[in-house]
Amino acid sequence: MKLIAEVLKITAGGKQIAIISEESANSLGVHSSDRIKIRHGSKEMIAITNIATHFPRNRIGFYEEISKSLRLKGEEPVTVEIAEIPESLMYVRAKLRGERLKEKEIKTIVEDVVERHLSEVEIAAFLTALNIYRLSIGENESLSRAMVETGKKLDFGVTPILDKHSIGGIPGDKTSLMVVPIIAAAGFTIPKTSSRAVTSPAGTADRFEILCPVKLTNIEIKNVVKKTNGCLVWGGSLDLAPADDLFIQVEYPLGIDPLLLPSILSKKKAIGATHIVIDIPTGRGAKIKNLAEATNLASDFVDLGQRLKMNIQCALTFGEQPLGWAVGPALEAKEALSTLMGNGPDDLKEKAIALAGMLFEMAGLINGRQKAQYILQSGKAEKKLREIIGEQGGNPKIKPSEIELGDKIGSIFATKSGKISRIINESIVRIAKAAGAPKAKGSGVIIPKKLGEHVQKNDTILEIYAERNSKLKVALELANKLQPIVLNKKIEDQILLDKIPKKFNIQEQFMIER
Amino acid sequence: MKLIAEVLKITAGGKQIAIISEESANSLGVHSSDRIKIRHGSKEMIAITNIATHFPRNRIGFYEEISKSLRLKGEEPVTVEIAEIPESLMYVRAKLRGERLKEKEIKTIVEDVVERHLSEVEIAAFLTALNIYRLSIGENESLSRAMVETGKKLDFGVTPILDKHSIGGIPGDKTSLMVVPIIAAAGFTIPKTSSRAVTSPAGTADRFEILCPVKLTNIEIKNVVKKTNGCLVWGGSLDLAPADDLFIQVEYPLGIDPLLLPSILSKKKAIGATHIVIDIPTGRGAKIKNLAEATNLASDFVDLGQRLKMNIQCALTFGEQPLGWAVGPALEAKEALSTLMGNGPDDLKEKAIALAGMLFEMAGLINGRQKAQYILQSGKAEKKLREIIGEQGGNPKIKPSEIELGDKIGSIFATKSGKISRIINESIVRIAKAAGAPKAKGSGVIIPKKLGEHVQKNDTILEIYAERNSKLKVALELANKLQPIVLNKKIEDQILLDKIPKKFNIQEQFMIER
Repeated sequence: MKLIAEVLKITAGGKQIAIISEESANSLGVHSSDRIKIRHGSKEMIAITNIATHFPRNRIGFYEEISKSLRLKGEEPVTVEIAEIPESLMYVRAKLRGERLKEKEIKTIVEDVVERHLSEVEIAAFLTALNIYRLSIGENESLSRAMVETGKKLDFGVTPILDKHSIGGIPGDKTSLMVVPIIAAAGFTIPKTSSRAVTSPAGTADRFEILCPVKLTNIEIKNVVKKTNGCLVWGGSLDLAPADDLFIQVEYPLGIDPLLLPSILSKKKAIGATHIVIDIPTGRGAKIKNLAEATNLASDFVDLGQRLKMNIQCALTFGEQPLGWAVGPALEAKEALSTLMGNGPDDLKEKAIALAGMLFEMAGLINGRQKAQYILQSGKAEKKLREIIGEQGGNPKIKPSEIELGDKIGSIFATKSGKISRIINESIVRIAKAAGAPKAKGSGVIIPKKLGEHVQKNDTILEIYAERNSKLKVALELANKLQPIVLNKKIEDQILLDKIPKKFNIQEQFMIER
Repeated sequence: MKLIAEVLKITAGGKQIAIISEESANSLGVHSSDRIKIRHGSKEMIAITNIATHFPRNRIGFYEEISKSLRLKGEEPVTVEIAEIPESLMYVRAKLRGERLKEKEIKTIVEDVVERHLSEVEIAAFLTALNIYRLSIGENESLSRAMVETGKKLDFGVTPILDKHSIGGIPGDKTSLMVVPIIAAAGFTIPKTSSRAVTSPAGTADRFEILCPVKLTNIEIKNVVKKTNGCLVWGGSLDLAPADDLFIQVEYPLGIDPLLLPSILSKKKAIGATHIVIDIPTGRGAKIKNLAEATNLASDFVDLGQRLKMNIQCALTFGEQPLGWAVGPALEAKEALSTLMGNGPDDLKEKAIALAGMLFEMAGLINGRQKAQYILQSGKAEKKLREIIGEQGGNPKIKPSEIELGDKIGSIFATKSGKISRIINESIVRIAKAAGAPKAKGSGVIIPKKLGEHVQKNDTILEIYAERNSKLKVALELANKLQPIVLNKKIEDQILLDKIPKKFNIQEQFMIER
């Protein structure tokens, strides 16, 4: 069938969609979401059909993705025919029936996800089925490999390459800003890529962006790593395991995370990591709630690492409260820098030393922990971070006091004296986001006292930073309502663990941070 | 946030989508597929966000669905803010976790599907989860009720209202064209709504449309039923259980059909049916493969009917070959009309009499089968069908020979003498579709000899009708390749039932006909 192209001046967010009229759809024998093959000159491509009522019969509408690929300038004729069902869709359907997929089948699916031959509906069904049936270790391996192979790789030409990753889940976790300079200062290579916040108040990329640019090209990254042994960059534009980003787009509204393992390890594999510490924060209010669950997940990481030829150790860390005092991009960058300079919270120092120590020992050193501690305390780690900041294009001499914070500040005070018995991570996250994080970089919260510490009546137990008064007001109201810092909670107060049927909570938190 | 509306001159197939730039998305704090609330004057609505690169920062793009609802003429300013996650999405997520949903929760989901507040990704995940976990009888009931309540109803002001439905699965099933006039001729009310083909060579609406219009308004339907006791209309534009149509759109590419029961029974409930026969064709090549599966499904239909206050009986029918000789809209309409006039295939007559007889007995008559047989043989059913044709706007005097068939005809001949031991439904469907059915109404196939009949070498075992030579050629080639009519197959030839792992078949058939 011949149709006249109508070039729409908007993108479809990467999707390859063509719009045709009901009449054309009938003539072609296609239904909405069937695929059509479009030819223009020597160019040919597959698009997913959207059927529009009142669309002109003799036309076919293209978003920019397609008109660019077909090199269409304006109202040119194209040839359109129905396309076969892609092979990958057969495998998706097999997964919906609960069949275990083989390496080649999974590779076909991942390729078609990246090529945009599978629709969001089909990807959603695939991910839902994976989430329900759980992936076998073989499927995890195949998915990891396919995700690496369909993306770019970074080759630093050295070995070993060390890396550190947190599966996320607790607010305020700025450990990477400490571990990277400690490792790099010891002469090991640690090219750390990280993500921005999706559902949290700050991602590692958001935190480090306070100190210097994090959006670097692959060449710039190699240069920084060559000079400093390390980097802290945003992984989003490097095209490492691009299938993962497409999967996350679909997982996000669904609140599911079936690909946690391949998602993390494919990105590590793509940068050539050989030794990796995976941090699994564990506890109420973390992504992983208890040690049994954490141990299972850790075993899966180790096994999958072996299959992918990466040496992995997992650190199960205390996840029942935020890490350090600060939550929010600028507040956290400031805290990390101060800690490297000797003035930070103990839990942050301890975590950084513990994880860096594990990495040192994996790389063959003995007394890794002592080595990490020495590098931190001697100021070598601070010096290294400043080198990295400089090479990434920031001011290497920046002082913590020069970091700009929100100037609208409010406090929550203790209504009685007592010992802090609980800090509710989810509530901290909601309050920091209400204050404007991660978008308003200077906003967030400070938690001056942590679990087990004593406070006096009228002491500040939470400080809120915002860039606008209206945000500060909303965040303060929310904090007063949620009471995220709990004093003197007795065991008896919590004897009722859960109610069934539950009352659904619209504000339920879902964490997709990695 | 204030943005300027940009009205796109196309529809989004019913979806309520707004397009914003990455910058606006960041400012609003929304991700792709989050919801935003849009206000314009006194109008307010929720839309799902599509984030487009290079989209002007100060603008928001609307497809016709939204610009109409908001009464936007052109570049007018609108107010945009992030909307809360809909309650229904929490219930969808609960289903993904395997929780059993309550009536109110399911109703909220169905309402949001109809209001277009849930995206296709979310609906796909919901349906996939339902397909894997299977619905409880309570969930089936809640879904049926919610689907009725979110649509229109037809009230004929009489009782009982009889109805007949086939779950589909075998080609050539034109039984409804026989059962409706038999029942109506006896003075019972039978307002039959039916669907067009989605994956099959003909739906009941496609067949009857050969004889008269089937797209009637609700008022016209009432009128026809008042005058004739029956009708045979297309259900697609009546807005009965509209959620179902939206579910089917998503199920179709996925090849899943989790809502078979509520889909069928909600439409029956919406027209006020009180006594229903459900035909469950059973056998290799049908949707339901064996009697155990059919019996289970039948019990579910009966149970669900009771809960919905409808009297249901199921007919498990032989599904290992097409019904009658003809497959394709016009060929089947002609066969049904001929059969009502006394000259049809025995299996079609038998099935019509059996099903109509069951309905008569459900409605309180004794010897229902005899009554059905009498009405058919006496010509009263033919007379009634002609009345209905006339009232729906067709020619009541139409002769079978006046029905236009494709004039490009080809045959497949027996390569040896023998007895027909198998007719492969799936292959018949593919050949009829290759010939042009259902779009080219005169195309399809005739199977002159059925299971157990003898043929001589060079006898015609398949006739193909097409409207274009190119289609005929493709269909003939396919028929020669597929060999859908099998002679003298010995048991030993089929001792290997299946191979694991399977080789996936790209052409795998999925039936969503109801």
